[in-house]
Amino acid sequence: MLGVCYYPEHWDEDRWKTDARRMRELGISFVRIGEFAWSRLEPSRDRFTFEWLDRAIDILTEAGLKIVLGTPTATPPKWLVDQCPDIIPYDEHGRPRGFGSRRHYTFSSETWWKESARIVEIVAKRYGDHPGIAGWQTDNEYGCHDTTLSWGPEDLKGFKRWLRLRYQSADQLNEAWGSVFWSMELESFDEVTLPNLTVTEPNPATRLDFWRYHSDQVAAYDAMQCAIIRKYSPGRWITHNFMGFVSDFDHFKVGDNLDLASWDSYPIGFVEKFPFTEEERNRWAETSHPDIAPYHHDLYRAVGKGRFWVMEQQPGPVNWAPWNPVPKPGMVRLWTWEALAHGAEVVSYFRWRQAPFAQEQMHAGLNLPGLDEWSPGGREARQVAEELAALGPLPETGQAPVAILFDYQSHWSTVIQPQGKDFRYEELCFRWYEALRHLGLNVDFVRPGASLEGYRLVLVPCMTEVDEATRAELARTAATVLVGPRSGSRDRNFRIPDMLPPGPLGELSGNRIVQVASLRPGLADAVTGSVSGAAIRWREYAESRATVLARFENGDPALTERNNLLYLACWPDEKLLASTMALVTEKAGIATMPVPDFIRIRRRGPLSFAFNYGTEDWALPAGAEILLGEAVLKPQAVAIWR
Amino acid sequence: MLGVCYYPEHWDEDRWKTDARRMRELGISFVRIGEFAWSRLEPSRDRFTFEWLDRAIDILTEAGLKIVLGTPTATPPKWLVDQCPDIIPYDEHGRPRGFGSRRHYTFSSETWWKESARIVEIVAKRYGDHPGIAGWQTDNEYGCHDTTLSWGPEDLKGFKRWLRLRYQSADQLNEAWGSVFWSMELESFDEVTLPNLTVTEPNPATRLDFWRYHSDQVAAYDAMQCAIIRKYSPGRWITHNFMGFVSDFDHFKVGDNLDLASWDSYPIGFVEKFPFTEEERNRWAETSHPDIAPYHHDLYRAVGKGRFWVMEQQPGPVNWAPWNPVPKPGMVRLWTWEALAHGAEVVSYFRWRQAPFAQEQMHAGLNLPGLDEWSPGGREARQVAEELAALGPLPETGQAPVAILFDYQSHWSTVIQPQGKDFRYEELCFRWYEALRHLGLNVDFVRPGASLEGYRLVLVPCMTEVDEATRAELARTAATVLVGPRSGSRDRNFRIPDMLPPGPLGELSGNRIVQVASLRPGLADAVTGSVSGAAIRWREYAESRATVLARFENGDPALTERNNLLYLACWPDEKLLASTMALVTEKAGIATMPVPDFIRIRRRGPLSFAFNYGTEDWALPAGAEILLGEAVLKPQAVAIWR
Amino acid sequence: MLGVCYYPEHWDEDRWKTDARRMRELGISFVRIGEFAWSRLEPSRDRFTFEWLDRAIDILTEAGLKIVLGTPTATPPKWLVDQCPDIIPYDEHGRPRGFGSRRHYTFSSETWWKESARIVEIVAKRYGDHPGIAGWQTDNEYGCHDTTLSWGPEDLKGFKRWLRLRYQSADQLNEAWGSVFWSMELESFDEVTLPNLTVTEPNPATRLDFWRYHSDQVAAYDAMQCAIIRKYSPGRWITHNFMGFVSDFDHFKVGDNLDLASWDSYPIGFVEKFPFTEEERNRWAETSHPDIAPYHHDLYRAVGKGRFWVMEQQPGPVNWAPWNPVPKPGMVRLWTWEALAHGAEVVSYFRWRQAPFAQEQMHAGLNLPGLDEWSPGGREARQVAEELAALGPLPETGQAPVAILFDYQSHWSTVIQPQGKDFRYEELCFRWYEALRHLGLNVDFVRPGASLEGYRLVLVPCMTEVDEATRAELARTAATVLVGPRSGSRDRNFRIPDMLPPGPLGELSGNRIVQVASLRPGLADAVTGSVSGAAIRWREYAESRATVLARFENGDPALTERNNLLYLACWPDEKLLASTMALVTEKAGIATMPVPDFIRIRRRGPLSFAFNYGTEDWALPAGAEILLGEAVLKPQAVAIWR
Ligand SMILES: [Zn+2]
Ligand SMILES: [Zn+2]
Ligand SMILES: [Zn+2]
Repeated sequence: MLGVCYYPEHWDEDRWKTDARRMRELGISFVRIGEFAWSRLEPSRDRFTFEWLDRAIDILTEAGLKIVLGTPTATPPKWLVDQCPDIIPYDEHGRPRGFGSRRHYTFSSETWWKESARIVEIVAKRYGDHPGIAGWQTDNEYGCHDTTLSWGPEDLKGFKRWLRLRYQSADQLNEAWGSVFWSMELESFDEVTLPNLTVTEPNPATRLDFWRYHSDQVAAYDAMQCAIIRKYSPGRWITHNFMGFVSDFDHFKVGDNLDLASWDSYPIGFVEKFPFTEEERNRWAETSHPDIAPYHHDLYRAVGKGRFWVMEQQPGPVNWAPWNPVPKPGMVRLWTWEALAHGAEVVSYFRWRQAPFAQEQMHAGLNLPGLDEWSPGGREARQVAEELAALGPLPETGQAPVAILFDYQSHWSTVIQPQGKDFRYEELCFRWYEALRHLGLNVDFVRPGASLEGYRLVLVPCMTEVDEATRAELARTAATVLVGPRSGSRDRNFRIPDMLPPGPLGELSGNRIVQVASLRPGLADAVTGSVSGAAIRWREYAESRATVLARFENGDPALTERNNLLYLACWPDEKLLASTMALVTEKAGIATMPVPDFIRIRRRGPLSFAFNYGTEDWALPAGAEILLGEAVLKPQAVAIWR
Repeated sequence: MLGVCYYPEHWDEDRWKTDARRMRELGISFVRIGEFAWSRLEPSRDRFTFEWLDRAIDILTEAGLKIVLGTPTATPPKWLVDQCPDIIPYDEHGRPRGFGSRRHYTFSSETWWKESARIVEIVAKRYGDHPGIAGWQTDNEYGCHDTTLSWGPEDLKGFKRWLRLRYQSADQLNEAWGSVFWSMELESFDEVTLPNLTVTEPNPATRLDFWRYHSDQVAAYDAMQCAIIRKYSPGRWITHNFMGFVSDFDHFKVGDNLDLASWDSYPIGFVEKFPFTEEERNRWAETSHPDIAPYHHDLYRAVGKGRFWVMEQQPGPVNWAPWNPVPKPGMVRLWTWEALAHGAEVVSYFRWRQAPFAQEQMHAGLNLPGLDEWSPGGREARQVAEELAALGPLPETGQAPVAILFDYQSHWSTVIQPQGKDFRYEELCFRWYEALRHLGLNVDFVRPGASLEGYRLVLVPCMTEVDEATRAELARTAATVLVGPRSGSRDRNFRIPDMLPPGPLGELSGNRIVQVASLRPGLADAVTGSVSGAAIRWREYAESRATVLARFENGDPALTERNNLLYLACWPDEKLLASTMALVTEKAGIATMPVPDFIRIRRRGPLSFAFNYGTEDWALPAGAEILLGEAVLKPQAVAIWR
Repeated sequence: MLGVCYYPEHWDEDRWKTDARRMRELGISFVRIGEFAWSRLEPSRDRFTFEWLDRAIDILTEAGLKIVLGTPTATPPKWLVDQCPDIIPYDEHGRPRGFGSRRHYTFSSETWWKESARIVEIVAKRYGDHPGIAGWQTDNEYGCHDTTLSWGPEDLKGFKRWLRLRYQSADQLNEAWGSVFWSMELESFDEVTLPNLTVTEPNPATRLDFWRYHSDQVAAYDAMQCAIIRKYSPGRWITHNFMGFVSDFDHFKVGDNLDLASWDSYPIGFVEKFPFTEEERNRWAETSHPDIAPYHHDLYRAVGKGRFWVMEQQPGPVNWAPWNPVPKPGMVRLWTWEALAHGAEVVSYFRWRQAPFAQEQMHAGLNLPGLDEWSPGGREARQVAEELAALGPLPETGQAPVAILFDYQSHWSTVIQPQGKDFRYEELCFRWYEALRHLGLNVDFVRPGASLEGYRLVLVPCMTEVDEATRAELARTAATVLVGPRSGSRDRNFRIPDMLPPGPLGELSGNRIVQVASLRPGLADAVTGSVSGAAIRWREYAESRATVLARFENGDPALTERNNLLYLACWPDEKLLASTMALVTEKAGIATMPVPDFIRIRRRGPLSFAFNYGTEDWALPAGAEILLGEAVLKPQAVAIWR
């Protein structure tokens, strides 16, 4: 089903009915509203002006639209900031971040929690049982614009509180952090300082705890909002709209609060954000790289425990990337179908109509700026709506044969201590995912400690701290397991484990890592054996009691196997990665269907979907019973067959 | 005529007479003094020590030199900064900018206006009717070192005042800015904050108003100085020395205060400052790119309403670029003649003698550091003086056949909202100018709303907000008009216009722009038709009721024509630009004289001037009656013929 | 002899005996301890807990190890920072630099001097005559993490004090600095401000004085510690461990306080730090560039007046460079032998055992993280110990035939006023050193004003201010002298000298420099004559009364000779540099032995040492009487012969 993001407060009230009618005409079922409207709901403290929203909700409901109502906490109004300056976040340079855009609050502020609870309660009470309200969105895009971490006095206060709970005594804190190093020992929690603006790098254990603290704050803040909404709005679901390539907090923990996950899909904007090569950026500039959206669909399906939406779908050019091309004709439709193929329950476009004012005036909508006239993206959305209606309901999305274990903390840990400048956790996961998708496979993401039941292949690209639950699952599973570099290289306190890496996986892998090298661009170490290619960026020196499947140039183990667990002791280049994926899928007994790198396949129950991101045709498999599209998949085309 | 910048306060008094005599020997007519001498005129508050300046002025006057006296406000002395800390400017990071160099004041400070008025009045009173004083320079290089905008408490105060006048009520401010977006609505002007240090980008409408506010402050501050000078120094002209590639305030508005404009020409230093390619930077490192100085001569002739000087002419290597090569022999002479060819009344060298101390000790002068001995540049200046004397007075500079409309606000607007990282307004104007100069044409600049009477070709490379006066002129003119991308794309409040871009030019152009794409380096869109080449950086999607002269690859209009107005819907690459200029000059019936890209031609009345920036000879047109130089124009040579 | 850096406070006390025993087994003689232990010695003010250190010293001494005791001032503990916030340094942006790492003090703070004196006295008193104490290290790595300069209120206070002493009156200060320029004149020393955060660049003379002030502070602070130690620990030597490529203070002046110098040798990390080309960085990534360690050995031998140690030797990968490769097998041994060949009395590894916690957990030790098990580097250290024992004592290191004059102030001066962005003093010195080493020569460094007695060739790559003592030595010496660009280009007050550069060397060189050009990458000026190649980066325009040995393209002098002094008027490219070194060694009558660029030779008395940094074999000279190694020097091998 389709949805749209709408801002009645941006338009004259006499246009609302037309808008609602045209939404229905286009085939929209859901409309998200309200998430930035605080200054219109409460223009000054306790002066409430909800009547316009009452009317807007009624008009939309009467038109047959179901409403997703956002809590307005992403944009505290000016009077609130002036009355409660302690809600303001601080950047890493120690500067307060001002009013005038959005997300100008820190999750650490108790005042902010109080104010948030107050407005959420007011909104939830007023609309909680309105028949038009289908569900809720908490806040908007947690973490956007680097707002997970904050470096102000409220954050220090909260961090001390959190540390006190975790460590009980300063002695235990000193012991855990190894504060004896460089005389950093503290006599009490009062002496804790923020890990920024130090002369040289602060203790990485402190930094990791600071990150964990903030991640916990986000989850707890979200839980607070959810509890209030649940109280006043029984029977409605709650979601949050997460972002792409933002991993500053543990999304799984926020997902625990929610009924379903959603995310904001801007495939073209992300081409500039992710560390692609310039060649890739040019190649995919007008279509997006074919794995960006799918990767996130699969990740947020996991965050949503099987249920997800695309809450904001790019419908044309955006405004926020360094360059903002127009998507190739067909791409808005393609992205929509692709989200559905990956299991999205709803794809909701951002936004109904391009706003001709303020920060996002260059962001496309389904309608031209200020007008009641379809944009090119609007016309594609309408086509999808018609196709969806013709096709009828889609089958369930089943479990994939392959799982990738994704771990937010490993991202934080490698940012804190890269050791090699280009060791980027997210990039490693993305490239492993991409390699699987080149083989035509459905992929699930799983969180640390989750059950691996039912998977035939499990990938752990890198998991710096392997907790006991995860270790036990990896020991228990009969799946082929592939573990990547730096896994088990840190304990809970960010120390090198007593038995050396991979720590808790030492026994399962049969390996002990005694040295590691990071390799500057231009350096590589050839790998030969059952797989071949080269190590780049990162290379480990392992002592192995396992079977060595491939070796580095000097004979050191590069890929080892013990029982069903393989360990890859490096960052693989493209060739080594492909070769390794071929090997492990074969060992796992998974049938693959290699596709050109501009084609992607996804199965949903008995249906197969294909998507063409390229400039050449591609022939569908012979004998396909085609439900949508043609036997020859044109550039930017979509096909569905049985 | 020639001039020189001189600092008597830097040298022992017993050298002044020799200096004056040698200036006359060299052929200098004008000498600019005084603009950094505040601490020598008033070493502490109300303790005045003008006697040395009295003597210096007398000595110079007696030697037959005419004096340009600078007001000393570019360098408030330490005691003043200590007594009036509120004059200090703040950088965009919110940090006060300290004492110890120059321009350490904000135009927003009322205290500063008072102090400036005080010292200007004292100086103007004392020297206003001295017979040696030919004219005045206000302050020095407004805006240099990013000092137009300032981000401190005084600036906020002034900005609120300015907004109150412009918008009358907070409601109208909110409406104009679209503050409803992201709950940025303000209840009163007291709530206004500076548009810096926000979590993500501030409202572009706020930023543009902040920029307009500062630009207005500069013009008003300058007007204040001019009024005082005029009161005490009747019959003398007033100028200000503007800079190259600095567009942070509206120079035309400052020009309105002045009798003539002047600018500071450092052709080689600017090669590193402007966004040239590395190849261009290497090629022109020791001569400057052949359009840098001419572009500014023509621009400042417009700012000066037909009258301009070069107040500071580079006479050798400078000190402030990342690299500072020695100009090729002949270039100091060439630049001087070129300024004259473009209509400069006086070319004044900076500086008389290289100072062996302080910040600019590596900046060449006409004399070697500390010595009474010509530098290589000094010898070239003397040659020009002799040649000038031999040649006699030059004819008037007439109107050019082509006008380029230059609009400072369009620079601010595209900096605030680039949408494509390399969309740079100044670069676009410069490249259009360069393409015209490749055709051997004289070019005038005109300001928004100016009369276009007498031009046969009018170029509007980009004018984001097209005001009514400009629209009317463009409608009225019989000239061929070429309008470039993003023109009319914003209204007065930085909104997308109601009828979509090009807004007020929609009717004249017959176009409506429904989408725009910015293209990353490496992407291009081929253009074919009456012109050919490719769009780079920026490409618009137009619906057109006009004649389509050229199309993009997919058939969309690239160049359209309706009556005498052509619209180019992209940033043209070099080929498309040249091809377009060839077309529009032909349509305008202008005879061109294409020259190699190292040769430039300029006509002044019946005289033709040629300049060779290259490494090869160039033959003058057959039959030229040569007044200076030879029929074969050697590298770095100058020729004048009838 | 070998040593090691050890942190008993990092390990359980019951492991100390094993550690001491294993150190002796490996062949360690010296152990450095204590330099970061303040929080363990005095956990709160006046509460002392030295007993553990007493026991550690006893255990190490009893095992036969000699102890180097570090004063713990590099890491003031939290309670001290809280009680004395005025010790905190400020960065150039004006921000206090926080607690949480190390070196968080400014040398300007009088409180800090008092606190330092207090703890140093306590430590020196307690252990000064302990028989196990062989010597002392003051503090740790002065200047590390940009901590020589600080920009806070204490620094301003100290700077004013220093200026008052130097200049006596504000008038003399203004005169020296040329403050009249831009009205920067001060009425009293109270008006002095820090030379940071100015609108544009501050006066370079002020910056140089600020740098000199801080350099003086470092030397005086060190002298203060040394005086206390000498009082309580008679008969023990004192050293400080300097760093590589850190020249923010005058090391020679600190060396004056010391009995011997030492430095911390991280050859591979420095490959990323020094401005090598990417090609060089890739080539030498796993061995280090073959001159990095030797250059510093030779430099610190000069700082130590003939005596030096390597206090910290890289024993495997480090943690602090952008990329941290594993050294090739053999390199730890090679670096150790190389240090000894250059005259190191002791090579001490950092560190005994990799710490599995805190900031440097990825820094290798002689033992694996947390374990009693040799790392690969540990095994190589043991091999050196055995070889050393077999070889017996090494002969004295004599005087080299060539001296390079190294001048810290010239580094500061060219950083303050580069004039060409890539004019880097240290790089120039390094490249001249490298060129000599390609000729197989031993090289000494000498400080400004030092006797040149006994040298046959003296190189002065660049000495911006030539003081009278240095000028006199250069006039007196019979050696061939080669002087490089910018020498004598500034006087004591950072002014261009009255007679133009090379100022005091004008008479000796026969040259006067009237202009200089900096050349952007891509520009070059060919040089031909007795030497050939090209000028890059920097090129001077000299008037010469000397013999011109080589000329630039336009005929200007490039290399001149007057008596025994040659002047090179440019930054030479590789070819011109090699050609110039060949010429001057020939003129000096020095026999050279050119080696491939991966081979280095060093003589120590009658012994020759060779080191292979490459990937190919190299044959030792025929007839060598080999004491260590083989006639064919394999990659990463060492050979010693007579
Ligand atoms: Zn791919
Ligand atoms: Zn050109
Ligand atoms: Zn070399």
